[in-house]
Amino acid sequence: MRHFRKPVAVADKKGPSGFDPVTAADEAAERAISRYLAREHPDHGIHGEELGVRLGTSGLVWVIDPIDGTKGFLVGSPMWGTLIGLRDGDHPVIGMMNQPFTGERIWGSANGSFWRVGEKPARRIRTRACTSLSDAVLASTHPDMFGAEEAAAFTRVRQAAKFSRYGGDCYFYALLAAGHIDLVIEAGLKPHDIVALIPIIEGAGGCITTWSGGPAIGGGRIVASGDPALHRHVLRMLAT
Amino acid sequence: MRHFRKPVAVADKKGPSGFDPVTAADEAAERAISRYLAREHPDHGIHGEELGVRLGTSGLVWVIDPIDGTKGFLVGSPMWGTLIGLRDGDHPVIGMMNQPFTGERIWGSANGSFWRVGEKPARRIRTRACTSLSDAVLASTHPDMFGAEEAAAFTRVRQAAKFSRYGGDCYFYALLAAGHIDLVIEAGLKPHDIVALIPIIEGAGGCITTWSGGPAIGGGRIVASGDPALHRHVLRMLAT
Repeated sequence: MRHFRKPVAVADKKGPSGFDPVTAADEAAERAISRYLAREHPDHGIHGEELGVRLGTSGLVWVIDPIDGTKGFLVGSPMWGTLIGLRDGDHPVIGMMNQPFTGERIWGSANGSFWRVGEKPARRIRTRACTSLSDAVLASTHPDMFGAEEAAAFTRVRQAAKFSRYGGDCYFYALLAAGHIDLVIEAGLKPHDIVALIPIIEGAGGCITTWSGGPAIGGGRIVASGDPALHRHVLRMLAT
Repeated sequence: MRHFRKPVAVADKKGPSGFDPVTAADEAAERAISRYLAREHPDHGIHGEELGVRLGTSGLVWVIDPIDGTKGFLVGSPMWGTLIGLRDGDHPVIGMMNQPFTGERIWGSANGSFWRVGEKPARRIRTRACTSLSDAVLASTHPDMFGAEEAAAFTRVRQAAKFSRYGGDCYFYALLAAGHIDLVIEAGLKPHDIVALIPIIEGAGGCITTWSGGPAIGGGRIVASGDPALHRHVLRMLAT
């Protein structure tokens, strides 16, 4: 938080052609989380966005994105979060998103999903029913995240949806889990962008898969839906 | 706030072709603000988004947008705000944006611009220097807000900027005033969307005009820049 809305040193991982900032906050947060986990769970693996992979012996691996939504962070928006997921082999079992500026924490597992704001009691969250795409609110981080073919498929869904909203990163998945958004469609995601969000969405009654209906754990092209019937419909639209 | 992140009744002002929701919160907030102003300043005019115009006798007119960023509000995003501006004839003199979920208030006048979070002391805000468009962070509410000709001009600027971010409504103008964003370019704005933001941006050292360099008070095609040199450059690009 001490780097939020302050001038920050920006490194460019992709070089002059692209822009994918790494802030001092990103690295410091991941270091703090990894250090804690390594001490508390020395037999667990840790897979972080910034600092790489630490092998474990238990089959349990923590997947960390210290700041998901770095561009949002850079512009001073509250629409970013710290993601910490736990996978057991290839199965995501616990996920958490933390937003320290607003004081929000969202987490999920097979026991359900929950949202806490500040010191208020956590409340259980659930996705909402929305069987018709024409009633669905669609969200995505940025239209430029899609390649040409992906953009065509995304646009088919977007034009049939009620309205669309950009600029949210992980925050949109949390809002979907809480029943405020019906669809999130993205592409080019990394595992650390998505592992923590899977238990949150599934624990709230939603669906999250690749565009072809496979497991979301590897990232890539991802679609999340609050209503399983809407999910099946949109998978067909993304495939054609 | 009691309607935020709750199921809300949504009316559709534009009919089946478009989507411009009016929530119960929108109307209730404007009614509360108007009632207060009419009691405290019976000779002032009031121009609200939802409830229309009340004529005054003083030349001073309050311009109110109870929820700027209704779609953001509807999806549960914190990127919306209540706008209250005061104009003296055609000159905006005081502007305020309030974000009740995050507890943020931003205001500006000829005495400067300020940002307060919760109960912490207000801090003075200023735009940042950014003379080169290739270093500039550009923000806008949604790419669909532009007509075809407008979209071509917007795209020219966007492709030359460092990166772009969507989904912010009034919140982006506040972030520009605080030096986190360099450019906001939008179109189709109404006076109540912009009057309160003019003193905030000008009081922080920035520029806000129409795309042709005229006064922003009437809305329409709007460009705001943190750096006056960047503003002149972008006005030329939007005109060609």
